[in-house]
Amino acid sequence: MTTVDDTTPRSMSEVSGPSRLAGPDEGISTEELQLAARNHGIPLEALRYDVTPAGLHYLLIHYDIPDLDPATHALVVDGAVARPLTLSLADLRDRPRVTRRVTLECAGNGRALLHPRPVSQPWLVEAVGNAEWTGTPLAPLLREAGIAADAVDVVFTGADHGVERGVEQDYQRALPVADALREEVLLAYEMNGAPLLPQHGAPLRLIVPGWYGMAHVKWLRSVTVLTEPFEGYQNAVAYRLRQDADDPGVPVTRIEPRALVRPPGFPDFMSRARVLRPGPCTLDGRAWSGHAPVVAVEVTTDGGSTWAPAILDEPTGGDFAWRRWRYEWSPRPGRYVLGARATDASGRTQPLEQPWNRGGFANNLVQRVEVTVVAE
Amino acid sequence: MTTVDDTTPRSMSEVSGPSRLAGPDEGISTEELQLAARNHGIPLEALRYDVTPAGLHYLLIHYDIPDLDPATHALVVDGAVARPLTLSLADLRDRPRVTRRVTLECAGNGRALLHPRPVSQPWLVEAVGNAEWTGTPLAPLLREAGIAADAVDVVFTGADHGVERGVEQDYQRALPVADALREEVLLAYEMNGAPLLPQHGAPLRLIVPGWYGMAHVKWLRSVTVLTEPFEGYQNAVAYRLRQDADDPGVPVTRIEPRALVRPPGFPDFMSRARVLRPGPCTLDGRAWSGHAPVVAVEVTTDGGSTWAPAILDEPTGGDFAWRRWRYEWSPRPGRYVLGARATDASGRTQPLEQPWNRGGFANNLVQRVEVTVVAE
Repeated sequence: MTTVDDTTPRSMSEVSGPSRLAGPDEGISTEELQLAARNHGIPLEALRYDVTPAGLHYLLIHYDIPDLDPATHALVVDGAVARPLTLSLADLRDRPRVTRRVTLECAGNGRALLHPRPVSQPWLVEAVGNAEWTGTPLAPLLREAGIAADAVDVVFTGADHGVERGVEQDYQRALPVADALREEVLLAYEMNGAPLLPQHGAPLRLIVPGWYGMAHVKWLRSVTVLTEPFEGYQNAVAYRLRQDADDPGVPVTRIEPRALVRPPGFPDFMSRARVLRPGPCTLDGRAWSGHAPVVAVEVTTDGGSTWAPAILDEPTGGDFAWRRWRYEWSPRPGRYVLGARATDASGRTQPLEQPWNRGGFANNLVQRVEVTVVAE
Repeated sequence: MTTVDDTTPRSMSEVSGPSRLAGPDEGISTEELQLAARNHGIPLEALRYDVTPAGLHYLLIHYDIPDLDPATHALVVDGAVARPLTLSLADLRDRPRVTRRVTLECAGNGRALLHPRPVSQPWLVEAVGNAEWTGTPLAPLLREAGIAADAVDVVFTGADHGVERGVEQDYQRALPVADALREEVLLAYEMNGAPLLPQHGAPLRLIVPGWYGMAHVKWLRSVTVLTEPFEGYQNAVAYRLRQDADDPGVPVTRIEPRALVRPPGFPDFMSRARVLRPGPCTLDGRAWSGHAPVVAVEVTTDGGSTWAPAILDEPTGGDFAWRRWRYEWSPRPGRYVLGARATDASGRTQPLEQPWNRGGFANNLVQRVEVTVVAE
């Protein structure tokens, strides 16, 4: 690009364009790659860990990781409440302490596999993790503040600041009041028994079990009760299921069921295709849903032509944590395409044809893991 | 793809192809994206931390993260030694303990910005981190084992297994014996004061201060002394500076000097382009070299047309850790392209025209950070 240095007023529109879809033969752009280089998924072999270790959990950071001082950070509870509150981290740590194992998944997981491809963070299937979050429940705090009888939405504001599709903003997401008052919702200050890492929202974040990642506001600094619907960018514009740019769409909320296969054997460096030797092999992976507990996982080794039931291990983390599944397999030499399909207690299951929407959200198409079983 | 399940013998060549260059207009492929989704860089705002926190340090994992048990893991020292050794983690922890702050950079950093682009892990500029590594020095251990007088190379073997360009292998890299005997070389079992994370080589890895990442073998299980040059894949084939496929090339060794700018202001979500308001602003970042200490950093705000000296902060980590630099800037509204150029005590500096080789290694082209200073 050429460099300009003049006094012409500059506006956000110079740096922030509208959303778009990739052309039919358009490869991943440098802009998408920049996002992929900083927002990483879980390496699929790490599905072996029931609790995802630090640094392996997926990350999606809209702007920059802010630099917050836990010693001075405060949470403000305001808006339509009788008694506004300001709490330090110490105040929050003095309140009832709860630890919950929760699976978080990015609402855009699977986006880069869609045709046409929405141009944004280019996830394949790996935008997930299952961590132990420790904090204090939000609902009692809202009740103490005296939430208004006519409250509609509760807005959660983070300290991360940026511009998105021309709108300068601090990251803000609202929950309907009934969802904000669910007993499972946490103000979390620890992950896996340690203080939150900067990239996971240090020193404080929201955890909304069952919902996609966009609801779990990081670097949380305020909780504001509204008596009218919140019209902020992330609720009204960004995270909606739309068929086209003019479709008002519906909000993205809870996680659709998904199962992932932990790729067996060993990989080729470049293609990540798997190599396996003949003989008995236990296939396994994890399955989750934000709507209801997973009740069944089926496995395919032929790209979805036929399916067989997997064994579900006992739940280890309650209704909002993933569950391990396994399947005994003994392949002959050949090429196989593995996949797994989760079904939850609400009857929801995974599609074999891609669900498509303009944002590439809530996509839970069955994964394809290519395996070559070599003879020798 | 179609699914086959027959008894035709299958070979590695089905899953593992030769290296290649991208076509002139070829976007990032799904295969490159798969690597980017699992091997992440440092988010550039994390250049604010002198010691890179867990999970923000860059990662390059050739195959899968292996699952090793620290309680039973053993390091074997063998080959051309008088007294072969087998050491447990406890044995290694009982030996002299050293902590060193070391900057690691992937040899392929910058690859995705090259024209033509070598098709491999598609790094932009972010494949770097600076951590505190704790372990025991390697040299005394080799002397105790009685390294042969005619030793040539020392081979370090990891527990990670895969296939690369058709060659099935455990990850193995050799150092010339003089480099293996440098007092700075560590067998590391802690990173930033905690046991190694799985993705950083738990429970044991090699640290070779000043060398690119490929030398710092993770999941280390053996150290083998050879009296002939090592001809393994990662030394003889992969990590070499070649102009074309027939060029025998020269080995990739130490880190070329590089400075990175911590992007100022705030980002646009999609383009990561920066927005800044007019007025005084301290630009800063980090600079490092594996050849010699950094002695100067220059800053450009006009894409390399003009340069001004930056202030170097006092070193915080010895000769092999990055060093902070800063530069006071007070821009008027306009568009700018920021960059920084490091020079080390050996006289090496960063080029303004891309150095190119077929693997995209040791590339230290000056970074370009696009900033728009808005009027209001």
